[in-house]
Amino acid sequence: MRPVTLLTDYGTTDEFAGVLHAVIARIAPDARVVDLGHGIPRHDVVAGALVLERTLPYAPAGVHVAVVDPGVGGPRRAIALRTAAEDRLLVGPDNGLLLPAAARFGGVAEAVEISASPWRLEPVSATFHGRDLFAPVAARLAAGARLADAGTPLDADDLVALELPRPEVGETVVAAVARVDGFGNIALHAHADDLAACGLRTGDDVRVRPLPGASDEPGGSSEPGASSGRAGGAIGRAGLVARYGRTFADVALGEPLVLVDSGGLVQIALNTGDAAAALGLAPGDRVELAPA
Amino acid sequence: MRPVTLLTDYGTTDEFAGVLHAVIARIAPDARVVDLGHGIPRHDVVAGALVLERTLPYAPAGVHVAVVDPGVGGPRRAIALRTAAEDRLLVGPDNGLLLPAAARFGGVAEAVEISASPWRLEPVSATFHGRDLFAPVAARLAAGARLADAGTPLDADDLVALELPRPEVGETVVAAVARVDGFGNIALHAHADDLAACGLRTGDDVRVRPLPGASDEPGGSSEPGASSGRAGGAIGRAGLVARYGRTFADVALGEPLVLVDSGGLVQIALNTGDAAAALGLAPGDRVELAPA
Amino acid sequence: MRPVTLLTDYGTTDEFAGVLHAVIARIAPDARVVDLGHGIPRHDVVAGALVLERTLPYAPAGVHVAVVDPGVGGPRRAIALRTAAEDRLLVGPDNGLLLPAAARFGGVAEAVEISASPWRLEPVSATFHGRDLFAPVAARLAAGARLADAGTPLDADDLVALELPRPEVGETVVAAVARVDGFGNIALHAHADDLAACGLRTGDDVRVRPLPGASDEPGGSSEPGASSGRAGGAIGRAGLVARYGRTFADVALGEPLVLVDSGGLVQIALNTGDAAAALGLAPGDRVELAPA
Repeated sequence: MRPVTLLTDYGTTDEFAGVLHAVIARIAPDARVVDLGHGIPRHDVVAGALVLERTLPYAPAGVHVAVVDPGVGGPRRAIALRTAAEDRLLVGPDNGLLLPAAARFGGVAEAVEISASPWRLEPVSATFHGRDLFAPVAARLAAGARLADAGTPLDADDLVALELPRPEVGETVVAAVARVDGFGNIALHAHADDLAACGLRTGDDVRVRPLPGASDEPGGSSEPGASSGRAGGAIGRAGLVARYGRTFADVALGEPLVLVDSGGLVQIALNTGDAAAALGLAPGDRVELAPA
Repeated sequence: MRPVTLLTDYGTTDEFAGVLHAVIARIAPDARVVDLGHGIPRHDVVAGALVLERTLPYAPAGVHVAVVDPGVGGPRRAIALRTAAEDRLLVGPDNGLLLPAAARFGGVAEAVEISASPWRLEPVSATFHGRDLFAPVAARLAAGARLADAGTPLDADDLVALELPRPEVGETVVAAVARVDGFGNIALHAHADDLAACGLRTGDDVRVRPLPGASDEPGGSSEPGASSGRAGGAIGRAGLVARYGRTFADVALGEPLVLVDSGGLVQIALNTGDAAAALGLAPGDRVELAPA
Repeated sequence: MRPVTLLTDYGTTDEFAGVLHAVIARIAPDARVVDLGHGIPRHDVVAGALVLERTLPYAPAGVHVAVVDPGVGGPRRAIALRTAAEDRLLVGPDNGLLLPAAARFGGVAEAVEISASPWRLEPVSATFHGRDLFAPVAARLAAGARLADAGTPLDADDLVALELPRPEVGETVVAAVARVDGFGNIALHAHADDLAACGLRTGDDVRVRPLPGASDEPGGSSEPGASSGRAGGAIGRAGLVARYGRTFADVALGEPLVLVDSGGLVQIALNTGDAAAALGLAPGDRVELAPA
């Protein structure tokens, strides 16, 4: 019996994640089910792909369900994949969510379209494919069924691709905010080698400057937490100078630092403080980093 | 060993739900425990009953604990029930919470008052019966103990009944908001046949109009999120015209639709948007639906 | 295979708690893992210690991981302990978090410094020791490895101590708010015998008065929920008179009471209401209780 992992944007206030567990428990009563998390920002496929990619290497090889699925019930395909390395099975919508994680394991060795899977729960609802499609298919796979029997074969080259944003690297690094964690730490779509490419080394001072971006324009994101953050923040556009450190305790309490987070992304943080609130930054915003 | 499911209004910020798991793990170390969820709005017995009723059919037959229990420690009874179909065991307060779910499985075949159960944890606290009463009774039942040994027999006709709200159906459908999910989708206490009864078919345009209700009056609900929603919403009392569709993707991004949700309730949604915020609606508010 | 419990301040929006599960599932696939909770206020070591101490007696003896760790990556030690009673194993940072719980089980019988544990995941990140150190060590211990092999021996007397705050008891009881739960109930760092010492008995009326405290001063806590609460609350500094009861239902709906909560702490509550909002109180604030 393979373990099953779950990653969604369902939140935990509603029963949606619980229902996935319920469905799996009916079909594969002995399968271990691990919640990687249900807190992906609603409909944010890029954030979901990023988290799936960075968490899967820590999970046992098994069946990995991911659901961030704004197109549920529409024409988008539902898929199950096998990775070239470790024979991991990934199940979810065909919107790019699964591919960065698959790439970590050698890419897609086999792909199946499961929208009409014989294992789905009938009647399939138009809005909750996690329950009616992804969970039952995952449970059957966990119980030992063959991927080829989950649906109809699909050419891996036909899968919807997703490129994770890359920074602009020159004399400065300009990168998009990938996410803000619950501590207020800001992860960027940038890596240590991007900082190195503009001459930044651990121990250096880094100028951190929020840039005007799409999210500031009228008609941009109306996510409440985000917009209130952008409305000001104690620091705002002026930015700040942060130490390029290794961990929070490298600077005094409340002081800013730039570091590489536990998933390999460049992070902006305040030691025990909330950097996102102070800088007024939210996912999608852009930041410029430069030697100070 | 039967599986155990948990549904409460404890939230996940505090350790209350975790303690239920802990207690069950001591008594029934091999029982699988599935969290259906802990996000029922505090003290909202109707919302809890609704969620239990709609999720239980997806869970394996087992021992099903539900706790939404504003009367804890007072005169309300604590009960364990066996359903006529599938021999499911339901455990919780005798405030109506369990009965709509039991009705889905043929009604109550056996009922036991468990307030003085020999299996309770002593000393029983006055405020945390989930820990001291419901969890240990459920764990014993999961481990194979007989329901009759959980306490003293009770006539099923003496249980506290709970009627889920029904809509007024005529030339329009007037229904109460059953709940708002984390995506902002609004589920009503109404079903597809209620819409059909006033002439609405899939593909039709539906006029959706929030009605003044008890929650707008001084002294009404003071739940912060709710009242701020009611204070306005981008749309408010004027209402809107929505397509009666099947899934979110049936309309353009941001556009409104009426659909039947995955639990069979009529739902008002915006494709990838937050309908509750836009319409200023919260649980308990009333809405009128009519052909446009 | 011993069960593993987890208690952290990671929250459940991010994947951090899920990754702990993933790591443990790789190393100890058959170990039961119980989330005691992940909602400890960020960096609040005292709150974490309090919750660990009050929940552990309900959990089966096993390996108990707790992570509230503002000093992660800095000079603080990482430790694993064995308790004198029940042979429980506690794993976490050496900042006092584990000691009140260990004291409940006879104190520390054996202590090991695990920062350089042979079982850690390499490369150890500087910011996520839960994943790289605490979870893998706990999983090995759950699978039966010997505590002595987890690292290097440590004198229990050298562990960082933590005193939970004690009330001032005289003609009144002055106590700090230990925490506010999701229902708005306020738990104090005080016990029933403190109330008895100033002459209060169940059934008495109690005057409850919030005191000015550090958190009101400029530069105090900037936690948003907390400060807005302090800005007023319907009742505020004037305080109120509450019945010293046993459970919420001892008073009418909306009425205040003082009681002893399910963990033994003195609690201020409103029957089905939100006492913390009404009184404008947050963790760290001080309250005076006196016969009315």
